[in-house]
Amino acid sequence: MFEKITIIGVGLIGSSLSWAIRREGIAKTLIGYDSNTEHCERFQKIGVADQVENDPQKAVADSDLIILCTPVGAMKSVFQQIAPHLKSGAIVTDVGSVKASVIEDIKPFVPKDVTFIPSHPIAGTEQSGPEAGFASLFDGRWVIITPDAGASAEKTALLKAFWEKCGSQVEEMEPKHHDLVLAITSHLPHLIAYNIVGTAAHLEQVTSSEVIKFSAGGFRDFTRIAASDPIMWRDVFLNNKEAVLEMLGRFTEDLTDLQRAIRYGDGDKLHDLFSKTREIRRGIVAAGQETIEPNFGRNKND
Amino acid sequence: MFEKITIIGVGLIGSSLSWAIRREGIAKTLIGYDSNTEHCERFQKIGVADQVENDPQKAVADSDLIILCTPVGAMKSVFQQIAPHLKSGAIVTDVGSVKASVIEDIKPFVPKDVTFIPSHPIAGTEQSGPEAGFASLFDGRWVIITPDAGASAEKTALLKAFWEKCGSQVEEMEPKHHDLVLAITSHLPHLIAYNIVGTAAHLEQVTSSEVIKFSAGGFRDFTRIAASDPIMWRDVFLNNKEAVLEMLGRFTEDLTDLQRAIRYGDGDKLHDLFSKTREIRRGIVAAGQETIEPNFGRNKND
Repeated sequence: MFEKITIIGVGLIGSSLSWAIRREGIAKTLIGYDSNTEHCERFQKIGVADQVENDPQKAVADSDLIILCTPVGAMKSVFQQIAPHLKSGAIVTDVGSVKASVIEDIKPFVPKDVTFIPSHPIAGTEQSGPEAGFASLFDGRWVIITPDAGASAEKTALLKAFWEKCGSQVEEMEPKHHDLVLAITSHLPHLIAYNIVGTAAHLEQVTSSEVIKFSAGGFRDFTRIAASDPIMWRDVFLNNKEAVLEMLGRFTEDLTDLQRAIRYGDGDKLHDLFSKTREIRRGIVAAGQETIEPNFGRNKND
Repeated sequence: MFEKITIIGVGLIGSSLSWAIRREGIAKTLIGYDSNTEHCERFQKIGVADQVENDPQKAVADSDLIILCTPVGAMKSVFQQIAPHLKSGAIVTDVGSVKASVIEDIKPFVPKDVTFIPSHPIAGTEQSGPEAGFASLFDGRWVIITPDAGASAEKTALLKAFWEKCGSQVEEMEPKHHDLVLAITSHLPHLIAYNIVGTAAHLEQVTSSEVIKFSAGGFRDFTRIAASDPIMWRDVFLNNKEAVLEMLGRFTEDLTDLQRAIRYGDGDKLHDLFSKTREIRRGIVAAGQETIEPNFGRNKND
């Protein structure tokens, strides 16, 4: 499919992509680059790439597809470094969780003979680093691409085919709409999870040891996404400020309404909401985006 | 261990207890009761109990251990029905998620020759009904018991041994403290999960189908506990009002602070919090209260 693919940033997503590319034989040559030399060494050790480079210019030389897999706050600077060395006709994409700000950062530096089509695979785990990757991460997940009017249909189709080869389904979207959808399906859930874990850690009346022991009551679910990469998530909130603040405003408004229902003992209101939310879970399971097993299919003794 | 045990309410917890009692051979005779005749029939079909009764008086006759497994709002009325028919020397316990209000509801009706020791197993799944139960639900989980000063050491030790046989570890606590600990480790997480799922369902700019499709970004995690039994959870919030409102106040205060950090672009503050919360997850995994597998050990393609 491609002669040469370069992965820029070899953390969870970059290394998972490498495994998926290998599994499907998508590239003759696969190059990994990371600005962190220790990450380069660890990625080299895994042995999934043909070559691991610590020099961004060398990493992208003659590459047909370049995939930016760094935190979104680091994309502009790395792209400025590689831009003058990109092969004519190359496709550049990224995997950032925010699209409008990434486009704003990257687009001014894209050479005329290179095509930039932003992507966002809705897939991940709470782990990070080169060793956390695995080939099936993208299987059955959705990838949103946000090609602009200038992107050639041919290149867009090729990028779409790439993600499909990696196991995903692809949907096209406007960048602004992407940022709004992800604010509710991903960014706000992370913010709330980080927040409640922080609240629990700072209580005076309940010890950390109690929080840990009795976490199976529901709290432990939140700790999973609150264990996600701190730099990645800092950058998401700094770069999708408006949409996150809008969703947060709605969440808080609804929560205040629930708080009032509890204070005044309005059981019907609580019961109504709690019945409706079950349906959404069923929809997600039916859409193949969640396991049907109770407790996420955790081992029964976990 | 007991000649006869009666389970009052044969939903997820009641049926799981039945399976655990069978697995360990804890009772010679196991009786199930439910006020809902359809639940009785379904429980009968499963075949785990020796006898299924729709008459509470018959269900508790000669029983040595009676376990109330109804929603906490239903306990008072069912207990008033069974109280005059309890065997002298019997132990009564419950599995309610709130302790102070259950004690207030039950204690005035406990006969002098019967011992009531409240329990709360910190275990469950998002599923409900007689068919949702399984024997290993309590394995490795904690059970909090809140015996009062009047409870005999012998009966307390017997109840503790019962829960340990079911696979759990037991901790004693004051009822008020229990309610505070569970407000943060269980009740607030449920409230927030129900709330965000509700918020997502009511958006005009993002469709339900988009919320479902792209839920793997984090949102789907919240839908699990937001799929929990609506009546059980309505009753929890109505009966642990003060502690929930206090924890909710702290959560909202912290969230407002985070909101401000996002608005003013305070990346350091975000990064600091996001780094600390990772540690709590590690503590929970190390304490054996969570799987070490990424994504809760979901099947890789789920």
